[in-house]
Amino acid sequence: MNTDIFRYFSDIATKEVAPGFFSKLIHTDNNTINFIDVKAGSSIPLHQHVHQQCSFVIEGKFEMTVDGDTQILDPGFFAIIPSNAVHGGAALTDCKIVDIFSPVREDYRALVSG
Amino acid sequence: MNTDIFRYFSDIATKEVAPGFFSKLIHTDNNTINFIDVKAGSSIPLHQHVHQQCSFVIEGKFEMTVDGDTQILDPGFFAIIPSNAVHGGAALTDCKIVDIFSPVREDYRALVSG
Repeated sequence: MNTDIFRYFSDIATKEVAPGFFSKLIHTDNNTINFIDVKAGSSIPLHQHVHQQCSFVIEGKFEMTVDGDTQILDPGFFAIIPSNAVHGGAALTDCKIVDIFSPVREDYRALVSG
Repeated sequence: MNTDIFRYFSDIATKEVAPGFFSKLIHTDNNTINFIDVKAGSSIPLHQHVHQQCSFVIEGKFEMTVDGDTQILDPGFFAIIPSNAVHGGAALTDCKIVDIFSPVREDYRALVSG
């Protein structure tokens, strides 16, 4: 099996990137893909970064604020967060979220190797 | 609500990009993200494209061949398909799959507007 191509999530270390946010991070040429299990009640303060971020809630409900606009994401409703937009949020339930960043989050890559 | 940022899947037209592959396509600056419902037994022949492709099976089992290596993807096991690698596969069960392409699939964008 070509293990550059085919990979197990169980082989990726889980990193708690913020309190209650448990991430498995995948870095490709142009993206970081973040599969996150979030505990209900956990929140991430408003912040910003140059990376465009697409946030998809696979399970649960996550209250997301982007540029002052607060909405509740669920499996039918997602967010495309522009570069440098101020954003943050809170898990209303336990959540499974997929965040896709472009370009690569070098800060997260450093976390993984740290 | 800022509808450039917050979007409903129900507002995205479903396109049958191959027989049995029902896609909702999201195009960002650098990516196409393809949320696909695949019917069991549907297959896509070997093909290749310049885009790097990350394939995640959210539900189900999908037999994927990349450069002659055949594996069965499931929610714990995914594929990062290099640019121009020959790949194809078949749904062993009904599947929910997320494919992330880089750069944007302009051919798919044309489908959506067609």
